[in-house]
Amino acid sequence: MQQQLDTMFGLNTPYSAARTVIFGAPFDSTTSFRPGTRFAPRTMRGEAYGLENYSPYQDADLSDTAVFDAGDLELPMGDSRLTLDMIERQTTEILTDGKFPLLIGGEHLVSLGAIRAAYKKYPNLRLIHFDAHTDLRDEYLGVTLSHASVIRRAWEFLGDGKIFQFGIRSGDRDEFIWAKNHTHLHKFDFVGLAETVANLGGYPVYFTVDLDVLDPAVFPGTGTPEAGGTDFMTLLNAIFTVIKNTNIVAMDMVELCPPCDHSGASTAVALKLLREAIIAIEM
Amino acid sequence: MQQQLDTMFGLNTPYSAARTVIFGAPFDSTTSFRPGTRFAPRTMRGEAYGLENYSPYQDADLSDTAVFDAGDLELPMGDSRLTLDMIERQTTEILTDGKFPLLIGGEHLVSLGAIRAAYKKYPNLRLIHFDAHTDLRDEYLGVTLSHASVIRRAWEFLGDGKIFQFGIRSGDRDEFIWAKNHTHLHKFDFVGLAETVANLGGYPVYFTVDLDVLDPAVFPGTGTPEAGGTDFMTLLNAIFTVIKNTNIVAMDMVELCPPCDHSGASTAVALKLLREAIIAIEM
Amino acid sequence: MQQQLDTMFGLNTPYSAARTVIFGAPFDSTTSFRPGTRFAPRTMRGEAYGLENYSPYQDADLSDTAVFDAGDLELPMGDSRLTLDMIERQTTEILTDGKFPLLIGGEHLVSLGAIRAAYKKYPNLRLIHFDAHTDLRDEYLGVTLSHASVIRRAWEFLGDGKIFQFGIRSGDRDEFIWAKNHTHLHKFDFVGLAETVANLGGYPVYFTVDLDVLDPAVFPGTGTPEAGGTDFMTLLNAIFTVIKNTNIVAMDMVELCPPCDHSGASTAVALKLLREAIIAIEM
Amino acid sequence: MQQQLDTMFGLNTPYSAARTVIFGAPFDSTTSFRPGTRFAPRTMRGEAYGLENYSPYQDADLSDTAVFDAGDLELPMGDSRLTLDMIERQTTEILTDGKFPLLIGGEHLVSLGAIRAAYKKYPNLRLIHFDAHTDLRDEYLGVTLSHASVIRRAWEFLGDGKIFQFGIRSGDRDEFIWAKNHTHLHKFDFVGLAETVANLGGYPVYFTVDLDVLDPAVFPGTGTPEAGGTDFMTLLNAIFTVIKNTNIVAMDMVELCPPCDHSGASTAVALKLLREAIIAIEM
Amino acid sequence: MQQQLDTMFGLNTPYSAARTVIFGAPFDSTTSFRPGTRFAPRTMRGEAYGLENYSPYQDADLSDTAVFDAGDLELPMGDSRLTLDMIERQTTEILTDGKFPLLIGGEHLVSLGAIRAAYKKYPNLRLIHFDAHTDLRDEYLGVTLSHASVIRRAWEFLGDGKIFQFGIRSGDRDEFIWAKNHTHLHKFDFVGLAETVANLGGYPVYFTVDLDVLDPAVFPGTGTPEAGGTDFMTLLNAIFTVIKNTNIVAMDMVELCPPCDHSGASTAVALKLLREAIIAIEM
Amino acid sequence: MQQQLDTMFGLNTPYSAARTVIFGAPFDSTTSFRPGTRFAPRTMRGEAYGLENYSPYQDADLSDTAVFDAGDLELPMGDSRLTLDMIERQTTEILTDGKFPLLIGGEHLVSLGAIRAAYKKYPNLRLIHFDAHTDLRDEYLGVTLSHASVIRRAWEFLGDGKIFQFGIRSGDRDEFIWAKNHTHLHKFDFVGLAETVANLGGYPVYFTVDLDVLDPAVFPGTGTPEAGGTDFMTLLNAIFTVIKNTNIVAMDMVELCPPCDHSGASTAVALKLLREAIIAIEM
Repeated sequence: MQQQLDTMFGLNTPYSAARTVIFGAPFDSTTSFRPGTRFAPRTMRGEAYGLENYSPYQDADLSDTAVFDAGDLELPMGDSRLTLDMIERQTTEILTDGKFPLLIGGEHLVSLGAIRAAYKKYPNLRLIHFDAHTDLRDEYLGVTLSHASVIRRAWEFLGDGKIFQFGIRSGDRDEFIWAKNHTHLHKFDFVGLAETVANLGGYPVYFTVDLDVLDPAVFPGTGTPEAGGTDFMTLLNAIFTVIKNTNIVAMDMVELCPPCDHSGASTAVALKLLREAIIAIEM
Repeated sequence: MQQQLDTMFGLNTPYSAARTVIFGAPFDSTTSFRPGTRFAPRTMRGEAYGLENYSPYQDADLSDTAVFDAGDLELPMGDSRLTLDMIERQTTEILTDGKFPLLIGGEHLVSLGAIRAAYKKYPNLRLIHFDAHTDLRDEYLGVTLSHASVIRRAWEFLGDGKIFQFGIRSGDRDEFIWAKNHTHLHKFDFVGLAETVANLGGYPVYFTVDLDVLDPAVFPGTGTPEAGGTDFMTLLNAIFTVIKNTNIVAMDMVELCPPCDHSGASTAVALKLLREAIIAIEM
Repeated sequence: MQQQLDTMFGLNTPYSAARTVIFGAPFDSTTSFRPGTRFAPRTMRGEAYGLENYSPYQDADLSDTAVFDAGDLELPMGDSRLTLDMIERQTTEILTDGKFPLLIGGEHLVSLGAIRAAYKKYPNLRLIHFDAHTDLRDEYLGVTLSHASVIRRAWEFLGDGKIFQFGIRSGDRDEFIWAKNHTHLHKFDFVGLAETVANLGGYPVYFTVDLDVLDPAVFPGTGTPEAGGTDFMTLLNAIFTVIKNTNIVAMDMVELCPPCDHSGASTAVALKLLREAIIAIEM
Repeated sequence: MQQQLDTMFGLNTPYSAARTVIFGAPFDSTTSFRPGTRFAPRTMRGEAYGLENYSPYQDADLSDTAVFDAGDLELPMGDSRLTLDMIERQTTEILTDGKFPLLIGGEHLVSLGAIRAAYKKYPNLRLIHFDAHTDLRDEYLGVTLSHASVIRRAWEFLGDGKIFQFGIRSGDRDEFIWAKNHTHLHKFDFVGLAETVANLGGYPVYFTVDLDVLDPAVFPGTGTPEAGGTDFMTLLNAIFTVIKNTNIVAMDMVELCPPCDHSGASTAVALKLLREAIIAIEM
Repeated sequence: MQQQLDTMFGLNTPYSAARTVIFGAPFDSTTSFRPGTRFAPRTMRGEAYGLENYSPYQDADLSDTAVFDAGDLELPMGDSRLTLDMIERQTTEILTDGKFPLLIGGEHLVSLGAIRAAYKKYPNLRLIHFDAHTDLRDEYLGVTLSHASVIRRAWEFLGDGKIFQFGIRSGDRDEFIWAKNHTHLHKFDFVGLAETVANLGGYPVYFTVDLDVLDPAVFPGTGTPEAGGTDFMTLLNAIFTVIKNTNIVAMDMVELCPPCDHSGASTAVALKLLREAIIAIEM
Repeated sequence: MQQQLDTMFGLNTPYSAARTVIFGAPFDSTTSFRPGTRFAPRTMRGEAYGLENYSPYQDADLSDTAVFDAGDLELPMGDSRLTLDMIERQTTEILTDGKFPLLIGGEHLVSLGAIRAAYKKYPNLRLIHFDAHTDLRDEYLGVTLSHASVIRRAWEFLGDGKIFQFGIRSGDRDEFIWAKNHTHLHKFDFVGLAETVANLGGYPVYFTVDLDVLDPAVFPGTGTPEAGGTDFMTLLNAIFTVIKNTNIVAMDMVELCPPCDHSGASTAVALKLLREAIIAIEM
């Protein structure tokens, strides 16, 4: 008797044959406002059923890809250190096996585990970061591992000038000042992205997409919605710009909070971006 | 004692004097993802109270129109064949009486009953179709009467080249390929609509509006939200383009799912489009 | 790399070694009022995480059982006949392999497929039915396969006096009158259940639990809530009475509608009853 | 063409032939906490579809009754005086025509208009009041017409000893003290109701049921839920006690707040009580 | 022991040192459709926590301002006259003390109290009004103090030609006709705003922002959502245009209805506009 | 100008004059299933407005008490150790000043900080624990500070036989076995409570109430609802039994999750229990 369990989009390439490996990191312990991103990967699997596998944007189909869905890590809520170690281990295993890791959050902190793994394999790693928030706080109420600090933590090993931030429209004053000397921070939109990408040459790129870069009209289902964001097609094209023009080695998509949007529209938006990203990565 | 029951916008022209007849088809048995469109006509009647009767877009008022609201058909949930027969019968009666049928879904399958009625009266009928989805599947899991197949079923009697699709951004690969030889499918937006309409001459037109052609930001209250859609004013103008420039003989508006959007904003959007369509039809 | 997908309670006995087989039937096309039961099995799998595997009521643990979760059937929404055939086929396979089928709805109509399979193996089958509604309509608006007719359809092959109904507090007058000559209908509660069970001797029993037998205070998450129902502990004990004292050969649990209760409490109630039923069946 | 609009339970006796007349008073301007009761009568009409017309409690059917549903009054939100005048006028007309008025709120203040009308016809009127709250404030922030003062206002013309309150579990200290000398206030439950009713003899009775007398577990859909209330069957039986044993001349049911309970269970509870009350009144 | 209670954005300048004074007017008794704006100021205080204090748009920070949050007035629900008197009194006190009043609604009627206070201090007052609705009804069902009449009431003392309306896309025909002779009504958008502002010279300006001027995609959390509105950045820039180029003496922001949008995104939008307005006023 | 900010029930005794001090601990980082208890104290303050200050159960009023509401601690989400230190410090200060600490969670872990403080002042402290869950895990996925381990952690310093648990109906098998030798665990209800309390003599008692001890019908607004719990009046009386018959020195009330129950009924239940507890403590 066949066992019909939900995988993302029903994708079912075995691990050994897969080029891309999706896994979920259901963790949101450091979320500063509305928690609930822990439910994102599970909810996305359940609702992927409502989306076609074919992309009219790329004229290609998920059935042309080779993706293994590893399911969700079982993470120790309340312990960021253990959590990041588990995510790093999983990412390292995927990278070591020559596959492309595609992490689904959870809150943004989970990216740090995957970035660390990518950095260990690619010491000259560059980070492209789409987000409404700078995520550059040094600490928050004494906590250094937080979704508000994840890019700052990544900077500590990546170093100056390796991080390219786009869409940023929120942060405290000190973060914006600090960024001037340490990252390439582009406020509000994706102006400069094409040039950034062109200049990256063959450097390995980790691509982290905090979905709250979208306007809350498009994507209310996130813990800290920030008005004044981008629309769907603009983000989709920006994602294509990065994936199709860089040496991308790993990617994540974070901060969908399903219980924050009962309509399910935010989950549908995340799924469509994920479908397009998978196809773009694999084509 | 006067009986004060809800009609759509409080419209109360008697049937005999009416030019336009609204009726609801509360059916959603074949919905593939989130059901609930059955509640659309009833919910719209209840919430029409929140909308003015005057259109500043057309500088005209619902009080200038002659509309009878027939209420809702009582449809046999789970039986698509019986349901479509009842809708066809009601539409035929309205057309026979020389009035304009304006059907409110329910899921998109309900349109098929009305299109059949219109086709019987107007064998050279053309179909203009606004939607996020192709709705051109031949069958789905063995089911041929489904909201994913409604336009394919209509094609079976309308024939090649009679169907004009706009805003389409979802479907499986085969549907898009099939469409190339059988319908005029315009992807993503309304480019080409003015030209299409200009070329239709005096052909009778059935106009079916699946509201999920709107972006989920504007219209989250639908069963299968598809990111990347149109905004409100663009759709409103496209609706004006069709109604004011063709020999339109019947129309429907489908796929509002009120329980999918607790804010009520989607219902308000549907109502405003309905108000504008009524005025445009009657002016 | 291990694939960590959701099964019910994380149960993972292989089919060959399993004594009990759970499967979901996500179908709700004939629901007369609020649809959404199609989401029940998937939602239950996702939220089982929040429940312990140990039962303090029975002092036993799910880890002591041998259960295979077959996942969900992919059912053709809108076609009751095909749907019931698929459910019957799945149930027959499980029964043929000497295992216990435990069906999770979906709407109550899905039970009919499983009852037919059980009846074919056990022609002297008895049916114990917990429900708020009689489900004895001969037809509704011309539809004979409907969640309001499921027990009537089962009676057509089971015959008079084989059906034992408890908790019934809703139906039309004709159904109650009809029941007097054809089923053993117990209104409102479980009075008489112990005696019924004692008299059943070794007859094979199919046990169908429509969760709306519970009071809506306990279980608002159902399509047609009926005030005046039973509380949780009373239902739990009645379930124990049936399972532990009859020759039960198959069981289902239906009519949880997750989108009808955003709090998730109804899903938690269903899961706890399911956990207790599994343990009671296997012990 | 038949016009199929929602009436309560589909009841459609013409006014002239009706014994009972239902009408809605969608007003909630003085609600002190969560507003939304204005939507109650409309929502009840739309959802009555989910309830059977037959009562297994009374073995009788709504089809045996003669009820006219007058729909909803159009009330001037924000003006309590005008609102009460309109309700009084409507009630007076029904009483004058020898029919039984059954008012559906709206907030509790609306009862005052109907009580005034009943008092004018029956100067020796008694008032039976089921509620969680005393509603005996003299004024609140300077406002004398308020849902917290409705029984106090009724006392001003009914006089001492004419008001019988049951289920009361909330109020300020002064209200409870005041009640000792002016009304018969029974705290928490319906103890003493049978005796009260027996002693009322043939006095005409106005019966006002504030549904928040129910426990919030049963009835969360109300503006000021008060824990520690009655369950459904207890309230149902108390309603039977009043209707079947007094010379009841008018009745209301108030304080259902549909947007306060997305599950719809509270509306279903109100509808079932309404069905039972109608049958009890008419039998 | 320090008492840590919520103020808006945690602002805590003492009244004596403050330049700007925020206060809430939690009143919504005249709301014609969906009530709930009474919860706006309290909800905004609770959720301001999720927003940064720094504005990347103005490169300035709330910590540079001097704002006292006076909390909420306790208003007599159901009595518009008393309510407006209390709001007028509070506004007058703030103006008398040489500070800038920033009123948070509540429904739009609350503005009238503040406008009256501003008019008494500045008899040559001009009113700039952003809204989806004209708010120019003379009366509604006999009620003259209503959120649909607030600008008409203000006109009665301000006089012809002193009111400048932008973004208007809803009203009855008579209101639009009336406006032609009495106010400067700009339909749909902010075209003409820069010119209007330039021509105002040094006249004192009261600025009232009904947030439903935003498109419901951006701002579904309001009682009467009107499709076809403005996006966030356009409104933000229009607000800057007014504040930075006129002699603004008082301002309000009204019609956020938190229970109308469970996602909280509408509240976040309102808070961001408020933050930007405060900084613009104080810089 | 008076500043009208929300305190719990509007209580406003200055700290120096207070006998009882309420403070909130908005922390939920270790919640294993549905997070959101961080919003409990703030939501309770905002909704206390809907509840009367007078208790008809105790015939006493909050105005007779002397309570200071210290507001909420600002806690470092994601860092349990820092969080518990801050809670311990605050509790110690209150105890040192001879006042009664009344902590509002947050998740159950927050109690540990307060219990530690109470233990340091009262080394012979007893703990009375109302809960659906044992909370006796030694660790969970390597995490020792978790809401599932809080009572185990307290046992480590309190020692064997000092902890009295009631209402417990969930936990893993090992926890129940472990409890037999270390705590007094009473399953399902409050049987034995009166005797327990009688035997405690003058020992100082810390009283921790996890509100999920209530049945989810009464209290759906919690992260891990467990069917089969107690009703409101039973819990209220059990709380009276503890408070009125022991030497209670500190108390907490935890695990209300407001976003888990949109109806607000769970918050209203928590508030009523809090009002009654305050009055019982102070009388």
